[in-house]
Amino acid sequence: MNSTDPHGAAVTTDEVASAIAAVRATSPLVHCITNTVVANFTANVLLAAGAAPAMVNDPAESGVLAGVAGALLINLGTVTSAQAEGMDVAIGAAVAAGVPWVMDPVAIGALPLRTDLARSWARRSPAVIRGNASEIGALAGGLGGRGVDSTASPEEVAQTARTLAAELGTVVAVSGPVDYITDGHRTARVDAGHPLLTRVTGVGCSLGALIGAAVAASGDPFVGAVAGTALVCVAGDLAAADHTGPGSFAVALLDRMSDVRPEDVAARAGLR
Amino acid sequence: MNSTDPHGAAVTTDEVASAIAAVRATSPLVHCITNTVVANFTANVLLAAGAAPAMVNDPAESGVLAGVAGALLINLGTVTSAQAEGMDVAIGAAVAAGVPWVMDPVAIGALPLRTDLARSWARRSPAVIRGNASEIGALAGGLGGRGVDSTASPEEVAQTARTLAAELGTVVAVSGPVDYITDGHRTARVDAGHPLLTRVTGVGCSLGALIGAAVAASGDPFVGAVAGTALVCVAGDLAAADHTGPGSFAVALLDRMSDVRPEDVAARAGLR
Amino acid sequence: MNSTDPHGAAVTTDEVASAIAAVRATSPLVHCITNTVVANFTANVLLAAGAAPAMVNDPAESGVLAGVAGALLINLGTVTSAQAEGMDVAIGAAVAAGVPWVMDPVAIGALPLRTDLARSWARRSPAVIRGNASEIGALAGGLGGRGVDSTASPEEVAQTARTLAAELGTVVAVSGPVDYITDGHRTARVDAGHPLLTRVTGVGCSLGALIGAAVAASGDPFVGAVAGTALVCVAGDLAAADHTGPGSFAVALLDRMSDVRPEDVAARAGLR
Repeated sequence: MNSTDPHGAAVTTDEVASAIAAVRATSPLVHCITNTVVANFTANVLLAAGAAPAMVNDPAESGVLAGVAGALLINLGTVTSAQAEGMDVAIGAAVAAGVPWVMDPVAIGALPLRTDLARSWARRSPAVIRGNASEIGALAGGLGGRGVDSTASPEEVAQTARTLAAELGTVVAVSGPVDYITDGHRTARVDAGHPLLTRVTGVGCSLGALIGAAVAASGDPFVGAVAGTALVCVAGDLAAADHTGPGSFAVALLDRMSDVRPEDVAARAGLR
Repeated sequence: MNSTDPHGAAVTTDEVASAIAAVRATSPLVHCITNTVVANFTANVLLAAGAAPAMVNDPAESGVLAGVAGALLINLGTVTSAQAEGMDVAIGAAVAAGVPWVMDPVAIGALPLRTDLARSWARRSPAVIRGNASEIGALAGGLGGRGVDSTASPEEVAQTARTLAAELGTVVAVSGPVDYITDGHRTARVDAGHPLLTRVTGVGCSLGALIGAAVAASGDPFVGAVAGTALVCVAGDLAAADHTGPGSFAVALLDRMSDVRPEDVAARAGLR
Repeated sequence: MNSTDPHGAAVTTDEVASAIAAVRATSPLVHCITNTVVANFTANVLLAAGAAPAMVNDPAESGVLAGVAGALLINLGTVTSAQAEGMDVAIGAAVAAGVPWVMDPVAIGALPLRTDLARSWARRSPAVIRGNASEIGALAGGLGGRGVDSTASPEEVAQTARTLAAELGTVVAVSGPVDYITDGHRTARVDAGHPLLTRVTGVGCSLGALIGAAVAASGDPFVGAVAGTALVCVAGDLAAADHTGPGSFAVALLDRMSDVRPEDVAARAGLR
């Protein structure tokens, strides 16, 4: 049963609301090894949602923290060979300790360092891989699957993600005007969000961290990925109702992530 | 003919308005290798103005992106020897591909690593060099020209910039209470902007990125440097009309960059 | 005489107000080698308070700047072995030049690189060490003193800080619901601040920079540490009066740091 099945949703509104409430109730520690552009915003998004951020990069320390965190985020946005060492150690420690980890393969495709890293690390049991259609397509193509080009329809993208998720045994979350989240068997759709979300740097990157928080709090990668996506999209819709400029919208986005009711997130997310 | 010629302006209001409109219409990709303090704000400034930011530092990737970007920004604010490698590769790729690049020689003078780099890279055909009077003076002095001291008048600074621009075959943009932009022959003045612009970190640094966007969109380094400067200054004046604190001013600055009309920027910039 | 002495305060409201006014009047340059998550916010906090930030990391430059700055901040939040080199050089130059420096031992305890660095650098005459109870306890424990556990009472934490400060000949500032600042002999209490301060990343880290500014401006590490703490706490209380979401609260926090009257900070800080 998946989202194309008219008879049922792949995830219930109760599950989504519960995951968001659980982030606030348990304040999971999310260890983020992420890019320098969005580190501040990502930390503030986690705090607004009720989670606790920590960011430790050096390989002498990154594994220590990853092993005790609620979740680990690996974001390749400004990866360097030095930072990749710390990421590699952290992934190893997370996997060894059973800590769920999220990979965000930012801008993979033409850029060689990150593309090689993402393809290699995709085999190390990430709980969730989050990206846009181009990034998910580049990952799928490089792993022997079928990539997507820029003319691919949303349904083609969703099919690529399903195949990738099934092959890797992970959840794949594809961000876009409509978001698709799939574990290869079930596929959920989140049909919410506002164009202003693309005018603030780090929204997508912080979604990766938020998914980590929701996975940690709910114990379920599929539900957690849907819940994190729904929270960003609905908070964006609420913020855009009062603010039209990207500066004030970003401020309101944090406010709404903090005060939106979990059941309202679930109800307004356009889940299918 | 230059700005001291009472009979004509070095750049027309139509050219400035067109360059700003072109940024919104074409959304040029600006590859920024910049400092960690302002990376987030710089990306948000580019997005607010309608451009697309990307920030890639590792030398294995920085040239790949620079070769296909609309413009490249090299900002020396927190340069390290490791980051300088990525910058060097990116400059080489930009020059080879004909991609315009902007150098911001932050705080050069007494600090040796960045000063040596800036003096060396100034010879590699930057489209625009942007700095304050002290930085432009330090660059000019080190290249055998006449530096400026802190007691230099605006007109002395402008003369130093003109000589430097002519020698290097580049555009030099000097930021200050009044901004001067010169290609060694023509000199434009932007007489706008508000003191609150100096109370928000990264305004000057993001101006370098914005100039890159406007150069990419207009195809003209001189006009692009004037247009980017005018946009920051006028958006600052508009933001300061409603906000007196540096936190809310910074938020409004992004909003106004996004919604100000290009013709209003040109009309309010105090161009000469 | 210390804060537990009912007969007098360890610091007067006049001293605190004067230190804050002196930051605005003299705009001290604070050289921050800090973590990538909070660098932007820290710079904006310094600017809002009237100080001037600079952030230079490479060992070829960090000592040059540290030797001429008003104060130096060393924050271990995202320390790497490469950044530690720049920090080490900067500390050496600051000490040689008599420039006061502040150490913020972020998250020391279980993480080995930063814990070793903090314990070693604590012996190099920092003017102020700022941390939360856990960090100060980990530093004290590792230096042969008595650490604290998570069940320690505020008064136990204050006693640990006093012993540490006396042994090192430094000022120790412990942040928490109530803040304690001690030089080992005198202990001041700041009983102000709002829970929203914990929902914005970088508030504690920027406090370290603000303490540096106030130490530079006042010439007194004890008074400067109290004044910096009081400014953050009172600005937080004022911001929270008008804003309940973490995004808009952070914006208002900067505004209030900029416009609060120094005598109001001193009066509202709950000094003892």
